Amino acid sequence: MDFERLGQQIGFIVEIDKLKQIFRQTLLLADRRQENDAEHSWHLSLMAVLLAEHAVETDIDILRVVKMLLVHDLVEIDAGDTFAYDAEAHKDKEEREIKAAERIFNLLPPDQARTVRGLWNEFEARQTSEARYAAALDRLQPVLLNLHGGGDDWRLHGITKSQVIAYNQHIEEGAPSLWKYVRKCVDEAVERGILEE
Amino acid sequence: MDFERLGQQIGFIVEIDKLKQIFRQTLLLADRRQENDAEHSWHLSLMAVLLAEHAVETDIDILRVVKMLLVHDLVEIDAGDTFAYDAEAHKDKEEREIKAAERIFNLLPPDQARTVRGLWNEFEARQTSEARYAAALDRLQPVLLNLHGGGDDWRLHGITKSQVIAYNQHIEEGAPSLWKYVRKCVDEAVERGILEE
Repeated sequence: MDFERLGQQIGFIVEIDKLKQIFRQTLLLADRRQENDAEHSWHLSLMAVLLAEHAVETDIDILRVVKMLLVHDLVEIDAGDTFAYDAEAHKDKEEREIKAAERIFNLLPPDQARTVRGLWNEFEARQTSEARYAAALDRLQPVLLNLHGGGDDWRLHGITKSQVIAYNQHIEEGAPSLWKYVRKCVDEAVERGILEE
Repeated sequence: MDFERLGQQIGFIVEIDKLKQIFRQTLLLADRRQENDAEHSWHLSLMAVLLAEHAVETDIDILRVVKMLLVHDLVEIDAGDTFAYDAEAHKDKEEREIKAAERIFNLLPPDQARTVRGLWNEFEARQTSEARYAAALDRLQPVLLNLHGGGDDWRLHGITKSQVIAYNQHIEEGAPSLWKYVRKCVDEAVERGILEE
């Protein structure tokens, strides 16, 4: 038995416990505290399984989608969460996250470090159907929590309908029918007065 | 487009946000707060991917393992978390959880409700290699957090080495080499004085 390899795997598994400390701007429905990245990643992964019929292609590899979603926010352990609508913070986001990827993924045995880096790169590049579907879910989930939570996150940051549409538009690339649903809900949110026109 | 079906799927996805409010006895490494079921499920799912080479069979269906792990604690939204070493609370655990499964899973469209129920039943029964591997990870993760957190959870509840061995023994069925690793770590924990003999 290769205890060195297993030791590296366990070291990584223990290190990523920190993802549970990285808080996002999205508020949970029940107690209105901020959601953390680990909870968010779980929610997206299960959504990927349940909403697969809405993916842009029907023969999509769901395991690869789920793997991408499970690892997509790990870099935020070092780089922190960058709020969706904060243009300033987005300027050095890539640099911060690449540095984080180097440190965190390389705790794994080299072959697995390469695999995880590949999954993260694929997710970020949004060139495959799997990555587009995964990225669509990553945008859909906070919109759903906002819609069902009375629009608090949007109001808190003064976000308008046109910003929501612009930021989340690439849902359409990965899951066209889910985008149609979001457009309908966003229009209703404006009518209900929980999102500014 | 079938908005009724999608509405049921979204209703379920919104309902399960509550899993982020179900707290376990395990303490997180960084800030020593209790872990919740959503974070735990994320951690296990990624462990399933990374530790696949240690599963009892090498041709295991990892997607099914991950699906089981993503849904395995959903019943606790209604039934609550039952502490591993609380024999009294385990008496009506099954009854409480079946009732919860009926309500929660049936928020989904009927075909998906059946699929999720099947995954949960499979996980609970531990008859397939996939379920045994999934169950092994469900036991391994709190042991890892305990070992790396100085044994606080064990000490808090006065848990001894023989209880840890007895409760976690079925790790061996699902991942024999991980059990060998746990046994080694548990012996070291006793030597280090963080677990009672």
